[in-house]
Amino acid sequence: MDQLKPSSVNSSPLTPLTFLERAAVAYGESISIVYNSTTYTWSETFARCLRLASSISSLIGIKKGQVVSVLAPNIPPTLELQFAVPMAGAVLNNINTRLDAKTVSVLLQHSESKLVFVDYQLYSLILESISLFPSDMNPPILVLVEDENSVSFSRNLDFHECVTYEAMMVKGNSKFDWVRPKNDWEPMTLNYTSGTTSSPKGVVHSHRSLFIITVDSLIDWSVPSQPVYLWTLPMFHSNGWSYTWGMAVVGGTNVCLRKFDANIVFHAISKYNVTHMCGAPVVLTMLANSPCGNKPLKNPVHFRTGGAPPPATIVLRVESLGFVVNHGYGMTEVAGVVVSCIWKPKWNKLAANVKAKLKSRQGIRSLGMTQVDVVDPESGVSVKRDGETMGEIVLRGGCIMLGYLKNQEATSKCLKNDWLYTGDVAVMHPDGYLEIKDRTKDIIISGGENVSSVEVESVLYSNIFINEAAVVARPDEFWGETPCAFVSLKMELKKKPKEKEIIDFCRERLPHYMIPKTVIFMDELPKTATGKIQKFSLREIANGMGSLPASRM
Amino acid sequence: MDQLKPSSVNSSPLTPLTFLERAAVAYGESISIVYNSTTYTWSETFARCLRLASSISSLIGIKKGQVVSVLAPNIPPTLELQFAVPMAGAVLNNINTRLDAKTVSVLLQHSESKLVFVDYQLYSLILESISLFPSDMNPPILVLVEDENSVSFSRNLDFHECVTYEAMMVKGNSKFDWVRPKNDWEPMTLNYTSGTTSSPKGVVHSHRSLFIITVDSLIDWSVPSQPVYLWTLPMFHSNGWSYTWGMAVVGGTNVCLRKFDANIVFHAISKYNVTHMCGAPVVLTMLANSPCGNKPLKNPVHFRTGGAPPPATIVLRVESLGFVVNHGYGMTEVAGVVVSCIWKPKWNKLAANVKAKLKSRQGIRSLGMTQVDVVDPESGVSVKRDGETMGEIVLRGGCIMLGYLKNQEATSKCLKNDWLYTGDVAVMHPDGYLEIKDRTKDIIISGGENVSSVEVESVLYSNIFINEAAVVARPDEFWGETPCAFVSLKMELKKKPKEKEIIDFCRERLPHYMIPKTVIFMDELPKTATGKIQKFSLREIANGMGSLPASRM
Repeated sequence: MDQLKPSSVNSSPLTPLTFLERAAVAYGESISIVYNSTTYTWSETFARCLRLASSISSLIGIKKGQVVSVLAPNIPPTLELQFAVPMAGAVLNNINTRLDAKTVSVLLQHSESKLVFVDYQLYSLILESISLFPSDMNPPILVLVEDENSVSFSRNLDFHECVTYEAMMVKGNSKFDWVRPKNDWEPMTLNYTSGTTSSPKGVVHSHRSLFIITVDSLIDWSVPSQPVYLWTLPMFHSNGWSYTWGMAVVGGTNVCLRKFDANIVFHAISKYNVTHMCGAPVVLTMLANSPCGNKPLKNPVHFRTGGAPPPATIVLRVESLGFVVNHGYGMTEVAGVVVSCIWKPKWNKLAANVKAKLKSRQGIRSLGMTQVDVVDPESGVSVKRDGETMGEIVLRGGCIMLGYLKNQEATSKCLKNDWLYTGDVAVMHPDGYLEIKDRTKDIIISGGENVSSVEVESVLYSNIFINEAAVVARPDEFWGETPCAFVSLKMELKKKPKEKEIIDFCRERLPHYMIPKTVIFMDELPKTATGKIQKFSLREIANGMGSLPASRM
Repeated sequence: MDQLKPSSVNSSPLTPLTFLERAAVAYGESISIVYNSTTYTWSETFARCLRLASSISSLIGIKKGQVVSVLAPNIPPTLELQFAVPMAGAVLNNINTRLDAKTVSVLLQHSESKLVFVDYQLYSLILESISLFPSDMNPPILVLVEDENSVSFSRNLDFHECVTYEAMMVKGNSKFDWVRPKNDWEPMTLNYTSGTTSSPKGVVHSHRSLFIITVDSLIDWSVPSQPVYLWTLPMFHSNGWSYTWGMAVVGGTNVCLRKFDANIVFHAISKYNVTHMCGAPVVLTMLANSPCGNKPLKNPVHFRTGGAPPPATIVLRVESLGFVVNHGYGMTEVAGVVVSCIWKPKWNKLAANVKAKLKSRQGIRSLGMTQVDVVDPESGVSVKRDGETMGEIVLRGGCIMLGYLKNQEATSKCLKNDWLYTGDVAVMHPDGYLEIKDRTKDIIISGGENVSSVEVESVLYSNIFINEAAVVARPDEFWGETPCAFVSLKMELKKKPKEKEIIDFCRERLPHYMIPKTVIFMDELPKTATGKIQKFSLREIANGMGSLPASRM
């Protein structure tokens, strides 16, 4: 039996790119993309991606393994490029559109990107970022991505300075023999994680890991054949958690959106009969608090959320509108959602608030992961399954990145002892579901007790006056650290609550050591480019306020 | 980027075995198996499989890579063994229960099986097959698998001669550290294909190919979370097309059946609210013709069929009862179904008979396959996509076997030029769907024209008197060969049709050269152990009749 070896027949590399070719046959006449007055079928999308891949390769001259970047919102070209760039043999680098010119410049230099597809609204950003290149470094070629509304814009450009997306399309060859990977492990994507100006962390994924996460994420969320998927999650965010490629597997319709707006989202759901969408909890919050969300949806919409635990009260509110929330946990390093809160039928009988609390737990590993555990970060030993003992989440499996580009130190710090160390702090419940308590660096240590900022925030979110909440450590002369809450209030409030009222509200619901000793009101909490609340800047504010004096005791 | 290599973190081998561990947490309290008065939950099934694996390994002393066979119908132990045997590090060898003692003996010797789990009803068969072992060869250890009804049976056995299944279970350790594969390519299963007495063809699959086919078969059939799956397809038949492992992914309930019987099947569908089942077209035929199938099903039942094209009239009949037929194509060499007839919404508007005809086409590759084509077997060039030009189906992708055990000649004949050559003859339709016309050896060449026996059979099946039909070549002095039809008639007929009536029926529906020149009536057509009609024995009968004389023209 040992003589039977893998061969060219059975070991053709796993890659999500083969899904598009199949979609062109299986779902050829079905709508692949809809965006304002633009629609394509899956056979058109396949032909367009082949044309584009051929132009990237032949017209521009991009070589196998070179990096090609995309800086654009959730418009049809962005989706096409998820296939076309790697079909040309290049490595796809989606760049967060909310970054500033300086950061974009650092990333383009670090990745040695040879070509950037840039949305017309981001054109000045890219020019600025290129102006920051050192004089001895060649900047990438630019391709302008236009829009139905950008005609007047492109007329004002000097056309010699850049190629346009549709010109590349026209010149491309729809019979192009696309570049298949030679083995499972060839790199396919490069995504930079947040906080990147100092030492960029560029997550590199192989064709294999992206194949696995794509099928995994379809099964784990029970995505049926031919769903209608609304793009509220940015495609630059972990390649849209792999649903960019997943929709080709199931022949779904991608409804594109240039910009997130609760009003537009409710309108699109109704107009296109949307069945599925994804987004960070902040998207759920915006939907929950939107005046447009005052009547229930016609049909259930499956909403997958992750990136941070969704506050139970928000889950409660959106589920009452007709959203079916699926909560998962993942990170760029695993290419999507790899832990999810598989729902148990027996939980349906529970009260709505208990259900929402259960649903806000992260859950169990998805089928593509081999093992997931919560361990003591020092000893590596699994923590007790008691729902109380905190430890670090560690992961092992086929969706995990190859490593960080040109950053061996960060790679070895993250991938070690046969595990990926996530830096996320969690407990393991007796039923085997894990629940995140915090990022390692967000834990507040008050009088020797570990305070999970997430738990305090979850209580704050249940206050009817509060729109957003974030809790960080503030130095305390007596306790070492105490929780400091930053909150924004709902817009429509006539009478605003005072600090004491918020603290009293927490006092009724939390152990003493977990109660915020400071509450700061803000109009809006500062967010990172991916929409997460910027805890580090809140931490700076809290530190800037100095220590709470011991005398107040 | 070239410096980023696979590591122990991201390259942990793909295997369907990890699905069970996950099911025990995600679906712990849900029913995994139901069989008469026996039911287990997924957490019980996991614990039982661990116990069993530990006993296989420690108690019996089976070593990594050794073959362990299973000879049993679709009862709970058979399902448990799909996990427990490879979890002990052994290679799982499901044996067809319809084989005779001589063939079983050949297979056990060829595979060097060390241990056989045998159902009590097949105990005498295994004893006979072992009696045929040469004196210098050690027979495998036997484990008796009992049943609720087998108590009196085991009392009559000398207990020293064999271990029992439940005794191994009791002695096993439910905390066993199961044996994970060291790499993707370690062999996990060994299945012998039909016609095996002379030169056994033992298909060996790796953990990787079984992982891929399992997730592939769930997505391709859109299997939702927590289905109720009725085991009408034998688990020994390509490991139940991978749904043995697939049900663990989605937390399904496996309804076990010792024996196929249309009456029992209709009863089980209603009793357990069955949602999914699989089987050869002969199973559909039995359901269609059963007197129990006279009233529509309460809820739709998804029925996946393959192995041979289902006659359109049978599809029509069972769909009218409430079965939703999904038709696919596969073979043991690819571990399940890898081509399937993806349904297009626009087809719903067509007439029922046109729909049934479309549905009987095999379709397009599943997502786990890299490429599928129909080629000229001599030149290897793709045939025209005209729905007429015949060629051989070739496959490439991750679900393909490692090869045939100890049969390099058969392996090289099948796996060559980067393709698996299937020996199946098909056409490619303009829409990219392939349709099987015949096995290479079943093609009838009449006056230089290729006659597809499948097409003639499909016309015969549309005759209301005919229950089963098979067409083979009969030597013909003038034409070289002409079609010879073997048919069985429906039971309840008062007046039986004559040969001429059947031929006239075909004359109205087929070109002249395709009309059977001979029709033979049989009570029942001979079947292989896997339920396929035994064309080779019909061919022997047709040859035995001698050539049709040229004078009759």
